[in-house]
Amino acid sequence: MDATSFVLKGNVCYSVSPQEASCTAGGYLVCVEGKSAGVFAELPERFASLPVIDCGDQLIVPGMSDIHVHAPQYAFRGLGMDLELIDWLNTRTFPEEARYADLAYAERAYSIFADDLRRSATTRAVVFGTLHVPATELLMDKLEATGLITYVGKVNMDRNSPDSLVETSEQSAEATRTWIADVAGRYERTRPIITPRFTPSVTDDLMAELSRIRAEFDLPVQSHLSENLSEVEWVHELCPWSSCYGDAYDHFGMLGPATVMAHCVYSDNEETELLRRTGTYVAHCPQSNAQLASGIAPIRRYLDLGMNVGLGTDVAGGADLSMFRCMADAVAVSKLRWRLVDQELAPLTTQEALWLATVGGGSFFGKVGSFAEGYELDALVLDDSGIRTPRELSDWERVERYVYLAEEGGRIARKFVAGREVELGA
Amino acid sequence: MDATSFVLKGNVCYSVSPQEASCTAGGYLVCVEGKSAGVFAELPERFASLPVIDCGDQLIVPGMSDIHVHAPQYAFRGLGMDLELIDWLNTRTFPEEARYADLAYAERAYSIFADDLRRSATTRAVVFGTLHVPATELLMDKLEATGLITYVGKVNMDRNSPDSLVETSEQSAEATRTWIADVAGRYERTRPIITPRFTPSVTDDLMAELSRIRAEFDLPVQSHLSENLSEVEWVHELCPWSSCYGDAYDHFGMLGPATVMAHCVYSDNEETELLRRTGTYVAHCPQSNAQLASGIAPIRRYLDLGMNVGLGTDVAGGADLSMFRCMADAVAVSKLRWRLVDQELAPLTTQEALWLATVGGGSFFGKVGSFAEGYELDALVLDDSGIRTPRELSDWERVERYVYLAEEGGRIARKFVAGREVELGA
Repeated sequence: MDATSFVLKGNVCYSVSPQEASCTAGGYLVCVEGKSAGVFAELPERFASLPVIDCGDQLIVPGMSDIHVHAPQYAFRGLGMDLELIDWLNTRTFPEEARYADLAYAERAYSIFADDLRRSATTRAVVFGTLHVPATELLMDKLEATGLITYVGKVNMDRNSPDSLVETSEQSAEATRTWIADVAGRYERTRPIITPRFTPSVTDDLMAELSRIRAEFDLPVQSHLSENLSEVEWVHELCPWSSCYGDAYDHFGMLGPATVMAHCVYSDNEETELLRRTGTYVAHCPQSNAQLASGIAPIRRYLDLGMNVGLGTDVAGGADLSMFRCMADAVAVSKLRWRLVDQELAPLTTQEALWLATVGGGSFFGKVGSFAEGYELDALVLDDSGIRTPRELSDWERVERYVYLAEEGGRIARKFVAGREVELGA
Repeated sequence: MDATSFVLKGNVCYSVSPQEASCTAGGYLVCVEGKSAGVFAELPERFASLPVIDCGDQLIVPGMSDIHVHAPQYAFRGLGMDLELIDWLNTRTFPEEARYADLAYAERAYSIFADDLRRSATTRAVVFGTLHVPATELLMDKLEATGLITYVGKVNMDRNSPDSLVETSEQSAEATRTWIADVAGRYERTRPIITPRFTPSVTDDLMAELSRIRAEFDLPVQSHLSENLSEVEWVHELCPWSSCYGDAYDHFGMLGPATVMAHCVYSDNEETELLRRTGTYVAHCPQSNAQLASGIAPIRRYLDLGMNVGLGTDVAGGADLSMFRCMADAVAVSKLRWRLVDQELAPLTTQEALWLATVGGGSFFGKVGSFAEGYELDALVLDDSGIRTPRELSDWERVERYVYLAEEGGRIARKFVAGREVELGA
């Protein structure tokens, strides 16, 4: 037995289906070599030799997967959200991302990002960097040191981008190959992911070359899809041969179960079917879609179709890294969508939001996001004693209110990723 | 000069109009006998004898007014927001409020509410209690002790309410008179406000009697208006004589500049004109209106018409007491409304949200919410050093991101109400 074999004792809650959470008061969550051996009301004799970490009356829930977040945008989170997507990119985002050519700036910025992500509820993340290889490798170094498990992308962009933040197609492909070679075998927890920014920033030639690279190195893919109405129209002009925006990726073989597409607010029936058929992951980013006035994605429809869906904070379209806030926002905007757009699609429940934040996004990383036997053990120990009430609460009620009140008085007491404890520090 | 005369030195920002904030770096905010004598880049000689509180590089902004919040619902904040208004009232809210017949329960619950409100960004509040006089007086005692300035209402409800939480018309009127007599002259900072729950809970006879009481004692009024579509229809059935829901209050003389009406999501042109003409305050409660699937109020229209509008957390329709979160939510839902409902109404800006949270709601209390000369001095000293960034930020940018990131890493370092410092404690 190694350091990744132990028992967590506490009030253990996790999603057993999108609709249902299982809670075991005073339960034993057994971790053997980094994987869950199950949750038990009494500790089975065969695990009696494992060290027990007694979490007292605290809650134990699965770690969260943030499957869409932009590391370089963390520096201007909470600022300048007064524009729609395309203007926001040109005015706020691209000038900030251009600064990551300066490795000293990247060092300062990514130190903060990695440090805050380490202390957050996130145990796994799918992360955009910038187009700069040195800064992206620096980001990967810093994320590796956190103990979290992440996919990190050097961004590709060879059109419709400012002079300060653009590559030629050849440069972009060559830099991507250099980067992949640099990081090969370098990390235990940090992996490269092919990252065409989005169709408006990537020529067909470059997209084709990125498709070859991803196939050659068997790499996953992340990008953006159907976030904003102007963007969707623009792709229609840029790729007149495509039957829908999603087809502009699928044509190059970029969709599939190893691909995350952020947003999917305006996916029509054809695009939705394409995403479903290919098993592509949808990263739902509710706060970003509100703050950039994009709209509200029909997540109920995607769940009903059995599609792969997780949650993303989409910093800095979203202002912060809190996955609890992301869950609360997912529920809130689904209610507004039901009220204002389409009463055919029932609002999401808090149970479903927990499922999306854990199993939904976690499954992009394998067997992650559940405490069922065989899952890699990502866990959060939550101290909710700062959220005071005169009422007696069930364990599920405590989880439910933590989703809405994490920032009011919650505290992450301990955090484990694949059975290894993450140092939370001050 | 007394303890309420002093100078705050720091980065002073406040709203000078809905569109514009004034920021003075290293400025001097002068308080003389509880009122602002203005903000100065250099301290005028005539104030040289006042003690100076040096807040260093911290931000100084006006205190916030939460003009719609339900104290007894704080105990179940963040729980059970899976229903629309009427079902939520019957299933979640009324059973909880009935518990306040038990003064020991009220003691436990209101201690937590008052303590958390004291430590929040709120300096003034307009508060619903329950229909119970002893519990409401207990709440007033506790709020008085916080140092905040509040209006607190014993709720009236004599129809369509459960047996455990209902009065006869006579009981309700008599209890209201008893309560007003009890609290007369009892407090320095805490005032009674007439509180018919909403038209569905109050018969015409009781509403008429409450109107007489409010006139007799010159008291303000708070209630709910046009929050939810089913509620609006119901009022149409209950008061077939009324031309709109707002008329069901106006008919009894319950509207005016001393009245707060919460929500106004579905106010039609006639009702809007009634609110405007009477100077009635609209309490905009964006988080509650999302979480109870009510909708999004057209606040831009109300501002364009020059109406009185402030913000409310509406706990427990809203999950927490944070007025910064309330401001961020007001901006976010206004963008979704623009996107999904009506592109004639531009989204709110962060500047406008600050104005609503300070001057907008503050003006219900008099000259409150500004640092202009003559305003009662409510101030927050904000420590944003926990919100890290490699960027250089202007003072306004620091305020702007604090709105979105208060819960991430912000800390209220000091708090003043009408020139008196509030003890924030641990």
